[in-house]
Amino acid sequence: MSDHREFRDLATPETLRETLADLDVDAGSETVGLDDARGRVLAERVDAGIDVPGFDRAAMDGYAVRAADTFGASETDPATLDVVGAVHAGERPAVSLESGDAVEISTGAVVPGTADAVVMVERTSETDGQVAVRTAVAPGEHVMAAGADIAAGQRALGPGTLLTPREVGLLSALGVADVPVRARPRVAVVSTGDELVPPGDDLDHGAGEIHDVNTHAIAAGVREAGGDPVVYEHVGDDRAAMTETIETAASECDIVLTSGSTSASAMDVVYRVVEDRGERLLHGVAVKPGKPTLVGTIDGTAYVGLPGYPVSALSIFRTFVAPRIREAAGRPPARTATVDARMATRERSEEGRLRLVPVGLVADGDGDLLAYPVDKGSGATTTLTAADGVVPVDPDTNYVDAGEAVTVSLFSANGRPPRVLVVGEDDPTLSRALDAVADPRYLASGSRAGRRSLRDDVADVAALAGPDADEALTGVRDADEALAGDSDAETDRERDVLAFWDRDWGLVVPAGNPVGVDGLAALVDDDVSFANRDAESGLRARLDAALDALAAERDVSRDDLVDAIRGYELETGGPESPARRVADGIVDVGLGSRGTADRLGLGFVPLGTDRVAVVAASDRAHKPGVADLERALDATD
Amino acid sequence: MSDHREFRDLATPETLRETLADLDVDAGSETVGLDDARGRVLAERVDAGIDVPGFDRAAMDGYAVRAADTFGASETDPATLDVVGAVHAGERPAVSLESGDAVEISTGAVVPGTADAVVMVERTSETDGQVAVRTAVAPGEHVMAAGADIAAGQRALGPGTLLTPREVGLLSALGVADVPVRARPRVAVVSTGDELVPPGDDLDHGAGEIHDVNTHAIAAGVREAGGDPVVYEHVGDDRAAMTETIETAASECDIVLTSGSTSASAMDVVYRVVEDRGERLLHGVAVKPGKPTLVGTIDGTAYVGLPGYPVSALSIFRTFVAPRIREAAGRPPARTATVDARMATRERSEEGRLRLVPVGLVADGDGDLLAYPVDKGSGATTTLTAADGVVPVDPDTNYVDAGEAVTVSLFSANGRPPRVLVVGEDDPTLSRALDAVADPRYLASGSRAGRRSLRDDVADVAALAGPDADEALTGVRDADEALAGDSDAETDRERDVLAFWDRDWGLVVPAGNPVGVDGLAALVDDDVSFANRDAESGLRARLDAALDALAAERDVSRDDLVDAIRGYELETGGPESPARRVADGIVDVGLGSRGTADRLGLGFVPLGTDRVAVVAASDRAHKPGVADLERALDATD
Repeated sequence: MSDHREFRDLATPETLRETLADLDVDAGSETVGLDDARGRVLAERVDAGIDVPGFDRAAMDGYAVRAADTFGASETDPATLDVVGAVHAGERPAVSLESGDAVEISTGAVVPGTADAVVMVERTSETDGQVAVRTAVAPGEHVMAAGADIAAGQRALGPGTLLTPREVGLLSALGVADVPVRARPRVAVVSTGDELVPPGDDLDHGAGEIHDVNTHAIAAGVREAGGDPVVYEHVGDDRAAMTETIETAASECDIVLTSGSTSASAMDVVYRVVEDRGERLLHGVAVKPGKPTLVGTIDGTAYVGLPGYPVSALSIFRTFVAPRIREAAGRPPARTATVDARMATRERSEEGRLRLVPVGLVADGDGDLLAYPVDKGSGATTTLTAADGVVPVDPDTNYVDAGEAVTVSLFSANGRPPRVLVVGEDDPTLSRALDAVADPRYLASGSRAGRRSLRDDVADVAALAGPDADEALTGVRDADEALAGDSDAETDRERDVLAFWDRDWGLVVPAGNPVGVDGLAALVDDDVSFANRDAESGLRARLDAALDALAAERDVSRDDLVDAIRGYELETGGPESPARRVADGIVDVGLGSRGTADRLGLGFVPLGTDRVAVVAASDRAHKPGVADLERALDATD
Repeated sequence: MSDHREFRDLATPETLRETLADLDVDAGSETVGLDDARGRVLAERVDAGIDVPGFDRAAMDGYAVRAADTFGASETDPATLDVVGAVHAGERPAVSLESGDAVEISTGAVVPGTADAVVMVERTSETDGQVAVRTAVAPGEHVMAAGADIAAGQRALGPGTLLTPREVGLLSALGVADVPVRARPRVAVVSTGDELVPPGDDLDHGAGEIHDVNTHAIAAGVREAGGDPVVYEHVGDDRAAMTETIETAASECDIVLTSGSTSASAMDVVYRVVEDRGERLLHGVAVKPGKPTLVGTIDGTAYVGLPGYPVSALSIFRTFVAPRIREAAGRPPARTATVDARMATRERSEEGRLRLVPVGLVADGDGDLLAYPVDKGSGATTTLTAADGVVPVDPDTNYVDAGEAVTVSLFSANGRPPRVLVVGEDDPTLSRALDAVADPRYLASGSRAGRRSLRDDVADVAALAGPDADEALTGVRDADEALAGDSDAETDRERDVLAFWDRDWGLVVPAGNPVGVDGLAALVDDDVSFANRDAESGLRARLDAALDALAAERDVSRDDLVDAIRGYELETGGPESPARRVADGIVDVGLGSRGTADRLGLGFVPLGTDRVAVVAASDRAHKPGVADLERALDATD
């Protein structure tokens, strides 16, 4: 720990950008076929090598004529010409015209050399080898002259042109089958860390293994920026292996990206490679997240060391590295879409560093955009998918206040807020219903979080459970009490309830209930280990209410009971987490629902009925996504 | 010709859209690896199968402790704990903590089961196996609990989610290596026509051959829309071959697109296949371009017959077919970018059909957008690349007036006007200079067109030659006259001249000048054939002026001379076109510049000096693209 590195002189974001701009990442050019040309960037000017069309071409079905023969012709006084032959598209004209002749011609066919105009078929009638032409045509009429589209020698497309289907069409017309394009920069992607396991392989949780997130996410980002990702097998913190991989990557690619190994000892390896074989240009940047970014060269190849946390790595990649790859690929800068929004809640910041706050977007009742911070920490990958963009908060700002106008830099130029934002209890019925709704977002952070979000005017819809659900349905937190009475407030509230249903809650035990757990008292009285839910969840509130009742029955305090439950403090994240700990043999009993127990093939000891209520904010009820959700919930039975 | 089909009952665009919507184009789903997942659409909901993280994870470098052991600790009164071991990321903790113990821990490592918090290293000092902790921590501090990112059983991503690098990251974290995605609809692409030759193969111009444009352009469009193009070799108008190809395509793909063969006889083949093996749903649509569109089914497979002209085919494809493919691929509708602009010139339309007018965009001096029609006819492929989008003009409108506000539907959501629009003489020096300018557009339609475009306030910059150039440089059309005098107007005008240069013009002859052409008179007096330039070009104006001088010398009219020149009327499109006809042995003499003759290895008989002047509109001189062009021209010497 003694050599733990501090970042005393952090580079500014501008310095990071300039340092990256100065790196040589150019990949040169290559030739691709027309089928692979879309999305590529032309490396050099393409001039027309041929006239297009290469001949005087009929623009209409009709008759090729000498224009002079039609002068004076009209509906009432047609010119009569001898039909001396026919020419179709793709045929060499077998006839030539004398004065007074006409040749039947198809659109796209060669106009015979001695003809100079085409009369459209609609203005003619043919009988017995002669055609009556009921209109006069000028020389050149309905003829596309050779080279009229584009002539040999003319500039067709300039260097740097992004090739869309339309440019592919023009290149086809010119006969350019081998297209000179900018090569995609080869970008080495190297994740480091002893704890990483490729997705698809099993994890040993107890040994601290996690899946390698950065390799595939950054490779996808490289591809999106127009680069060619070259993925190297992830390396542990072993010095020799890391050195070898980084040096190999530097010799094979135009730029090397590593992620992770920003810990003291591991970073030393990268340091040493960079300092032995190249140059360290920058280390540490005043951006949050992303401080421990390293930029340099290895054997002359550009090198960027990204932080290990996925949110940090992708944030630095997206903001600073991807634009450099785009530029090297010859692509125009990404049209970074920004939208104006109001901050939904106050967000504190830290002085001295540019902060990129991940935010989700939601349209309020008037269609105006609200931005709410989404941050489960840099270590959380769900932050990536729950956010629509970032709000840059500059180093001098301490906080952004609720209601303050902010500019959100969107992750995608096509980015738009979800059609419905649901916050609250995690429930499988609700999750299934959302499958039938286009573009929803569901933040399953618990019933209490849903209630808060509704109160803060953030969520369109809250999923409530436990006492929150009772209150939503009856206007008071104790359902029994409310159902006995009646009130106007109740009616008002029910208007926004989209749906509600009951679920059995209780204790999940191993199949066959080997320990013989028979009720809540067993948790307190028997020597069983327990896995709880977190305090945000409705089920947890049901458990605590049941403990209160048991405490009253025994005339003790709830704390007395809680102290006797081994694992009451073990709060787990998701609705299935306690049950999975039971299934994995880690604990004897878990809090959960009958549905979860059935799904995992476990035993279930019912303790009561929980009600889930899905409630829309009154001023959001008209949003199409809310209506879609209501329909989907109606259909879920 | 007797069976030439008329389209008497044209379907409305809405009917076309509905007919396509009713076709079954669904391709089902498939599984792809994470490396191929970007840009794909999730076919089903993905729930977390594991807790992420799978263990209580240290969020900081520091010491894992029991929080209770730190209560009351401060800078002045640290708690002293025994360091009983260390655990790094990816390691199984080998120690357990008793009260009073601490374990050195790295970010990402497993927090030992008997610890419940992490103290960050910055608030500690370690000496002799003991660590002084200078702060109190709460239970759970700097620990990311198992499942806190996402817990087993939670909804991770819904069906229909477009996978970006961020979703690829989340799927990685969950260990989902095989990703269930919507299959790309397989789209058969079949071009038809006897005249078509694949790009890359030589053309026989005399036999009316042209390159196949639609195959690659439509395949690229299919890919852009999220489909999987299956390209079949183009078929001629042979009935058996066409039938076989279409039936094979129908059996192998989810939708069959043909283009071309809308002529009477060829269309019969498609008709018969559709009517024998399926159903004809619609033929003929009230859209210009695109009238002869055909929709039906073949053996139950969706079928669309597109027009043969590339502009028509791609216009119908982009407007009607691509959205259907996107939908079948599960992609959200393309964000069709539109921009508001003013029409630069009056554009006439035709009643009764929705007209999609291709337009280019240019920013005027105030940065407002002007749209100018770009239409060299449906048969011209350059229309595709010279336009930025289309202005839909509805069937009831006769014309759009100059200055009228229009909404332009852009070809690309990232579409923006070129940074500089140059209209006028085709000149190789100017073309080379443009290679150094980012995102220019050069409409080389001749000096006269450049002068008109400047006058109409469309072009930023005009390339003038012949008398147009003299006038631009001196204020009068006769240079000799002007250079003798002096005027204020002259100074005013010169301010906007970006550059000018001279080029020798004259007669291009075969190498060695076998016919012994010695000057302009030879065209008139000798029996030689000639290829001219069109009346828009500056060189043609120089030729006509020289003919005027010769006529004056001989005391005859210019017409007398012109009548004696065999091929004076043979106007060709590009600056090299006459010379290429000389090179190909088609004519004896062509109008051209010394540069062209040298480039093609031909002989040259000089007739004079032509001046090319590149002139910016005064109110556009401040545009960055204009300044870039001026710099590039300065550097071209």
